[in-house]
Amino acid sequence: MYQCDEKRMEDKIKTFAQFGDAGHGGITRYSLSEEAIQARDEFVRRMQAIGATIETDDLANMYATIPGSDPNAKRIVMGSHCDSVKNGGNYDGILGVMGAMEVLETIVANQIPHKHPLTAVIFTNEEGSEFPPCMMCSGILAHDYMPERFRDNFAYEKMMQSKSILDPEMTFGKKLETFKYKGDIQNRMTPEKYQAMFELHIEQGPILEDAGKDVGVVTCVLGQMLYRVKFYGQAAHAGTFPMKKRHDAFHAAAEALCWLHDEIDQLGHEDLVYTTGEVVIHPCVNTVIPDFFDFSIDVRHENPDVLNQVREILQKLPQKEWKGCRCEVELGWNRDTVYWNKELVGYVREAVEELGYSHMDINSGAGHDAQYISYMLPTTMIFVPSDKGLSHCEPEHTSVKQCTQGASVLLNAVLKCDQKDEA
Amino acid sequence: MYQCDEKRMEDKIKTFAQFGDAGHGGITRYSLSEEAIQARDEFVRRMQAIGATIETDDLANMYATIPGSDPNAKRIVMGSHCDSVKNGGNYDGILGVMGAMEVLETIVANQIPHKHPLTAVIFTNEEGSEFPPCMMCSGILAHDYMPERFRDNFAYEKMMQSKSILDPEMTFGKKLETFKYKGDIQNRMTPEKYQAMFELHIEQGPILEDAGKDVGVVTCVLGQMLYRVKFYGQAAHAGTFPMKKRHDAFHAAAEALCWLHDEIDQLGHEDLVYTTGEVVIHPCVNTVIPDFFDFSIDVRHENPDVLNQVREILQKLPQKEWKGCRCEVELGWNRDTVYWNKELVGYVREAVEELGYSHMDINSGAGHDAQYISYMLPTTMIFVPSDKGLSHCEPEHTSVKQCTQGASVLLNAVLKCDQKDEA
Repeated sequence: MYQCDEKRMEDKIKTFAQFGDAGHGGITRYSLSEEAIQARDEFVRRMQAIGATIETDDLANMYATIPGSDPNAKRIVMGSHCDSVKNGGNYDGILGVMGAMEVLETIVANQIPHKHPLTAVIFTNEEGSEFPPCMMCSGILAHDYMPERFRDNFAYEKMMQSKSILDPEMTFGKKLETFKYKGDIQNRMTPEKYQAMFELHIEQGPILEDAGKDVGVVTCVLGQMLYRVKFYGQAAHAGTFPMKKRHDAFHAAAEALCWLHDEIDQLGHEDLVYTTGEVVIHPCVNTVIPDFFDFSIDVRHENPDVLNQVREILQKLPQKEWKGCRCEVELGWNRDTVYWNKELVGYVREAVEELGYSHMDINSGAGHDAQYISYMLPTTMIFVPSDKGLSHCEPEHTSVKQCTQGASVLLNAVLKCDQKDEA
Repeated sequence: MYQCDEKRMEDKIKTFAQFGDAGHGGITRYSLSEEAIQARDEFVRRMQAIGATIETDDLANMYATIPGSDPNAKRIVMGSHCDSVKNGGNYDGILGVMGAMEVLETIVANQIPHKHPLTAVIFTNEEGSEFPPCMMCSGILAHDYMPERFRDNFAYEKMMQSKSILDPEMTFGKKLETFKYKGDIQNRMTPEKYQAMFELHIEQGPILEDAGKDVGVVTCVLGQMLYRVKFYGQAAHAGTFPMKKRHDAFHAAAEALCWLHDEIDQLGHEDLVYTTGEVVIHPCVNTVIPDFFDFSIDVRHENPDVLNQVREILQKLPQKEWKGCRCEVELGWNRDTVYWNKELVGYVREAVEELGYSHMDINSGAGHDAQYISYMLPTTMIFVPSDKGLSHCEPEHTSVKQCTQGASVLLNAVLKCDQKDEA
């Protein structure tokens, strides 16, 4: 078994944490931003230092590749994203990139023999923080291989029109056009050129920590659905309009939110998660009764029957009385549970066992680039613990030791994959 | 009795509705904007056409004055504001300006004798839509005459630093500096130069309409308090963080909002109004559990004891359990009920009776420029009905007939004031 280097890993973690430092221990590093360029410059510096070839595709996905002994072998790819949510942490996404870099650095430093070319990848715009949707550029890469009913969600032209939430004049396509790392469509990841993909990631939840395990052998990504729940009321002046005549969209939404919690919790599924994280209110003025309130609800579970039970509850909302406001429930999108490639999951499990780290099987509640790539390549993931389960926030933390353990599992799983003729 | 002209009034209403037309029957016309300049240009055109003298002060408050027969008499002033909230209506504020213009036009056209110079005023930035607070420039004018505990709220230097909610680089002072209608501090309204003030305004509530009355004789502006209710939770990833461990600030706020409605409604005060119109949520991302949720609560009633009862309920919030989130309740500001000058209220009541319009005494739930001016001059207000009580929204409407009736009451009340040696 080979092991990655804690000191080198720590240096990467500290360095990348500077790019977009938001001042409270975390980062804000939107895709295509100046901060994203800093992170990518660092990726190039470190990968060129070990002799890797750098390529970028037309979506600004970046690939650093070291050759293998077989000139005809396809590439095995590892990686993740380097963009963050607003006030996010130093591990979500970037750990998968740092882990991939660490694997290549370890292989070069120790001259570890391998047959396949090995590639570290950065996917552009996984978080969709400025330009929705999430996992945009892995989605575009996998577009032709997706089930037909999803394809339209990641149509190239549509994605290029994605509007900035910061600047209504700006689209993803326009910003990409002038981005330093936009490259050639010929360099895109394809099944013709790539053999398999591994993504190391933080768990972003407390399950490994609570179970006292070092590594999660990820078996699937949970099925997920996203709805918007909208309330339409009547605006009127705060000081002059009697309470009894009001149609207050915020009051309606607050009651509906409490009702949803009661109803969904009564289903009694302990492993069901649902989140109402995004809110739009109009006009959002303290002297005006709100005439519109809209919240997102993101629901995740492995079992489609459980998701259907929640869907049924959501569909009851428009039939109920909410402070005289009309209610609409609108499906944003949904996806089925995605199971990882069993052979690759087996390599991860063997690797972690041989390294002697404690481990457990786990599913992923979060979406990841790997899940779209899995439509075109055999794919799997490796998780390391998140302190207190926190993620998508500045206190997000995983120890250097745990990060390095994750990279070591990645290294050995990739080498196992490399040793098979067909992964 | 003199009467104003419906056709001329209608022409003004239609013309001013074009400046900032938001496309659904209403306007967005922020103070100091291009649209505000268009409205002021129109004011200048019309007032110069009747020979009025135009003056502007250092706050861009605008004054159009016609002389009276007594060269030593102080001015009697009428007016309001021409800025609007976002997607506001065609009557709030601007009716008071149009009414004042209509009075001057009627007096000039009919050569109605009067002793005092008569002035139509536009106050800058009443709504505070881009640059808070509301009633900024009438507040600055009245600063030295206010009770000491309010003064700091309208200190000139502080107001100039008010930040744009649209552009964080812009302050009110900076924008005012280059505004077309910024004038001279010598032109400010002062008690030395002005005798009394009348403000015609739409009711912005349904009380006159429900009672079937043409005109409201306003007796006071309700006491008001504004609080912010803040919840601090813990951000975490939507897909990975178990429900039982969450500290969801939005869920906490929704429960607290419902609780507040229950508690306040149990007080049983029919004429109490309270509004939760403005919301801040962080990070406002559909894949992240919110760690911060903040809503405004604006509470209004004539009786300070009733406001105190609501204050006591609000102060209970931080002691209660809200989904594991910390709660803070912060006072924004409050003001006591302001009673109008009894003599001027009497002129309004006499005028409306002599004109034969149906009327009732009413208080104002909304704040108005007149309320700050009342600290330095005898002041009163006149209300006309709002269709369905709607205001601060595009469907806001008052008929041409009702607007003209309001102007006729204003005209005759002002002439009564003019006929007294000391109003």
